[in-house]
Amino acid sequence: MQQTYRLVIDCPDQIGLVAHVSQFLADHGATIVEASHHTDLQTGRFFMRHEIGADSIKLDYAGFLNEFTPLANEYQMQWKLTDSRQKQRVALLASLESHCLVDLLHRWHTGELHCDIPCIIANHPQMKQFADWYKVPFHWVDFKALGKEQAFEQIATLLQEYKVDLTVLARFMQILPDSLCQQLAGRAINIHHSFLPSFAGARPYQQAYDRGVKLIGATCHYVTADLDEGPIIEQSVKRISHSDTAADMVRKGKDCEVTALAHGVRYHLEDRVIIHRNKTVVFA
Amino acid sequence: MQQTYRLVIDCPDQIGLVAHVSQFLADHGATIVEASHHTDLQTGRFFMRHEIGADSIKLDYAGFLNEFTPLANEYQMQWKLTDSRQKQRVALLASLESHCLVDLLHRWHTGELHCDIPCIIANHPQMKQFADWYKVPFHWVDFKALGKEQAFEQIATLLQEYKVDLTVLARFMQILPDSLCQQLAGRAINIHHSFLPSFAGARPYQQAYDRGVKLIGATCHYVTADLDEGPIIEQSVKRISHSDTAADMVRKGKDCEVTALAHGVRYHLEDRVIIHRNKTVVFA
Amino acid sequence: MQQTYRLVIDCPDQIGLVAHVSQFLADHGATIVEASHHTDLQTGRFFMRHEIGADSIKLDYAGFLNEFTPLANEYQMQWKLTDSRQKQRVALLASLESHCLVDLLHRWHTGELHCDIPCIIANHPQMKQFADWYKVPFHWVDFKALGKEQAFEQIATLLQEYKVDLTVLARFMQILPDSLCQQLAGRAINIHHSFLPSFAGARPYQQAYDRGVKLIGATCHYVTADLDEGPIIEQSVKRISHSDTAADMVRKGKDCEVTALAHGVRYHLEDRVIIHRNKTVVFA
Amino acid sequence: MQQTYRLVIDCPDQIGLVAHVSQFLADHGATIVEASHHTDLQTGRFFMRHEIGADSIKLDYAGFLNEFTPLANEYQMQWKLTDSRQKQRVALLASLESHCLVDLLHRWHTGELHCDIPCIIANHPQMKQFADWYKVPFHWVDFKALGKEQAFEQIATLLQEYKVDLTVLARFMQILPDSLCQQLAGRAINIHHSFLPSFAGARPYQQAYDRGVKLIGATCHYVTADLDEGPIIEQSVKRISHSDTAADMVRKGKDCEVTALAHGVRYHLEDRVIIHRNKTVVFA
Repeated sequence: MQQTYRLVIDCPDQIGLVAHVSQFLADHGATIVEASHHTDLQTGRFFMRHEIGADSIKLDYAGFLNEFTPLANEYQMQWKLTDSRQKQRVALLASLESHCLVDLLHRWHTGELHCDIPCIIANHPQMKQFADWYKVPFHWVDFKALGKEQAFEQIATLLQEYKVDLTVLARFMQILPDSLCQQLAGRAINIHHSFLPSFAGARPYQQAYDRGVKLIGATCHYVTADLDEGPIIEQSVKRISHSDTAADMVRKGKDCEVTALAHGVRYHLEDRVIIHRNKTVVFA
Repeated sequence: MQQTYRLVIDCPDQIGLVAHVSQFLADHGATIVEASHHTDLQTGRFFMRHEIGADSIKLDYAGFLNEFTPLANEYQMQWKLTDSRQKQRVALLASLESHCLVDLLHRWHTGELHCDIPCIIANHPQMKQFADWYKVPFHWVDFKALGKEQAFEQIATLLQEYKVDLTVLARFMQILPDSLCQQLAGRAINIHHSFLPSFAGARPYQQAYDRGVKLIGATCHYVTADLDEGPIIEQSVKRISHSDTAADMVRKGKDCEVTALAHGVRYHLEDRVIIHRNKTVVFA
Repeated sequence: MQQTYRLVIDCPDQIGLVAHVSQFLADHGATIVEASHHTDLQTGRFFMRHEIGADSIKLDYAGFLNEFTPLANEYQMQWKLTDSRQKQRVALLASLESHCLVDLLHRWHTGELHCDIPCIIANHPQMKQFADWYKVPFHWVDFKALGKEQAFEQIATLLQEYKVDLTVLARFMQILPDSLCQQLAGRAINIHHSFLPSFAGARPYQQAYDRGVKLIGATCHYVTADLDEGPIIEQSVKRISHSDTAADMVRKGKDCEVTALAHGVRYHLEDRVIIHRNKTVVFA
Repeated sequence: MQQTYRLVIDCPDQIGLVAHVSQFLADHGATIVEASHHTDLQTGRFFMRHEIGADSIKLDYAGFLNEFTPLANEYQMQWKLTDSRQKQRVALLASLESHCLVDLLHRWHTGELHCDIPCIIANHPQMKQFADWYKVPFHWVDFKALGKEQAFEQIATLLQEYKVDLTVLARFMQILPDSLCQQLAGRAINIHHSFLPSFAGARPYQQAYDRGVKLIGATCHYVTADLDEGPIIEQSVKRISHSDTAADMVRKGKDCEVTALAHGVRYHLEDRVIIHRNKTVVFA
């Protein structure tokens, strides 16, 4: 995999901005592997992502940061520069349902998800041996024994100790306390097993069955204190019929959950997602 | 097109039922073109649809009705027998947005929708000439001049005079009064421009835009007094991204609306839909 | 609809290129409504499309052309600048199957397809009255009476007389002679009723039925002398099952044909398609 | 999971057949959990699958076989009766690419695929530890050391020793010799990484890239001596664009491969697939 820098910019739209950034990149000899732009015409906000061949540029990471800062300030940018070799540290939070966990570990193991997985945290012990196979430390947080409050304190501590960049709720099924949501804002991704905003909350497949919809789905979104209301990154749907029971929907829905979550996590890891208010720009 | 009889049955599930019906059909020499079954395991209800080659059977329509009635009574069936040559009379209710109207007329004209269209009723006069081309009587009901109550009275009268079997709201945009909903129960189909139950009510594409969903859709359902809450027949979705404005969604959503409505209407006309409580069995 | 200029560029990739173009646009005060880039890493070719608010720029169309030419020459660009107010002139070629024709006319009539339709040319007279309703001149070219060669000469003459920019074969079903294909290179779009390269040639739905595939499709592509081998713009598929006859596939496939063709034509009209060898870049 | 019997019938279509079978089932008190019918109107062949609650019926498996045989003979049925408790023995053949293997093992482990997996056979040793975690015997057949002929003899022996009912080529990448294809006819399932019949043979994603298609796919089919020509069970597709490299297609295509294969295998295991000439009836 080619080493790249990713320059991600979010700022007020302004004439000359793209020229200025492009000139900066050209001046330093940068080869553009991928470039994406978006202007939100309603809010006048501009979003830009460049993936730059690291070989081509005559600056190292620190030098790039330094040189680019004045330009960034001039245009009031919220921005970041990431180095594709610097892997994010991703913690997986899991429960009994293992399909998302198994899928993410496989994609990570085969290099599709370019990150480190320093730990798996679960409220049930069943997947320990599986984690062992992948040589990922596994922490069972016993919600029953500890009570909710202390259990989440333990999780918060683990996330800190492992210096976690991104927390993925891989069908974790426990609602994070507000304080933790705020602490992880923009750095925690959940998969909800419905096509949001339909069927937020508990037992979405049963809700879907009761309503008699003809398609079910899954939604990958950032975690916020408002349950199932965070910015949506990706959604996936699947056709069903009257002959599907709620149990069939659970089975069929898993394929939606797995792909929506895997895509959402990959987009995040590759710095393809920018949160704008309660929505996302996804340069997929 | 081959002439067929369609025997549609909805009754308590019971052992021997299928054997009894099949034996009846075999005794009269019926060739089965298509057979579909469904048991709702929760409610113990059984649903069956047979499409029978009319040539094969040694009974005419009236004879079939007569002969089958005792069996139907024995099993407490809600049932109907339809003759594919007897076209249903379908009224199209339209407004300014013409895509669903244009599409349904084309499908009817080319024989895909096997029905008669005795009239189009609209609250704007614009599509009159188009209806003329198809030689379908066009009635402009002037909601502004008449007021809502009188306008709907006029519509109710037209539906009665034209002996309408099925009323299709092809993006009609006016909410039917409760009394008319009840009168047309199970015989009026609407297209809502969202993936219900998400974004019921007004301006669904704007709602979808504001929420930042990654898929938009359309829902074809039976009209009930509870707005956008009727039994769903068909749904259709389409992928969107951050770069789509609410106006783009309107454009893209039209394709969903057109296909979901066309499918829903065809299923209804071919007696493929059975309403069961607030859901549908669709033998597609 | 906002007036825009569309600047479409296809040239060897080179550092400084984007900066140079962006600076040119900024210097003339251009507001970028939409910007898309693509580098073909295999061939080292760069593609760029800008949609620019015409109000914002301090140049008229001719001035823009003049000012930009030196820059274009410097980078060996194949390029064009189009004015969204200048509608392309689109001829529709049709046969008996009317679904694509009806659909395109509707999308044109409602403004979704921003073009002029100076004429419809058909090898059957049936759709004349329909064309009349849209007030589009209709030419019946009688292939039987004229023979193939003379018929196509007549078509070529009509395309010339009407100053046609784009020729759309809306299920025309006649194979264009090589000379006409070459003459219309990059300016003729066809819809083939299969998921190419599967089932090229005649009776694709029958071929699909015989092979027992589980999905059928349609392909919108540029016409070339090699039948069904031209650059693909858009494809669409639909799920089928064993219970679908070849006739069912014809019916179901129409929805694929209609949407694939409508999208392909729109992309072309909005200058979103760049042909690169035997493939396309589509800035959808 | 409820114990069921599955009665699968394939015979010439005949009036009275359904009645006769239904009466047989009713006479023995059978509750029908699911019933599916299909008539191939071209070949006059009839297909039927019943899933029967084993509790409800007053016959054990052997008794059912005995009692039903005269009826089956009368109608010249090809038929089978399976007991859902009798799990099929499924061998997985794998190579280096592990996504299908990992997915199938997970679905088996969680009970979605109701079968036994007595062995994994691979031409590379890498997945041994993973198989160990699932406690499935792993056999590395060293194609390089043994040569193709002897390697396949070893595989044939393993399949026999393990009394394998179904062989699944989970991206095995080796072409089975004709003799083995014939021996496993109807009992070996392959996943091909293209939307067949497009791009049969080697490197389908590269072929897809070169042709410039806008959708890629995967095909699950029965293995026959004609490479990639066997009866298709399931197909899956995914949208791509000009910006996807052949490597991107490989990544995106995996999701198609995984789901198409998982569905195809499940349909087979639940006796939902009937091979009819070179096509399949799939009662999904």
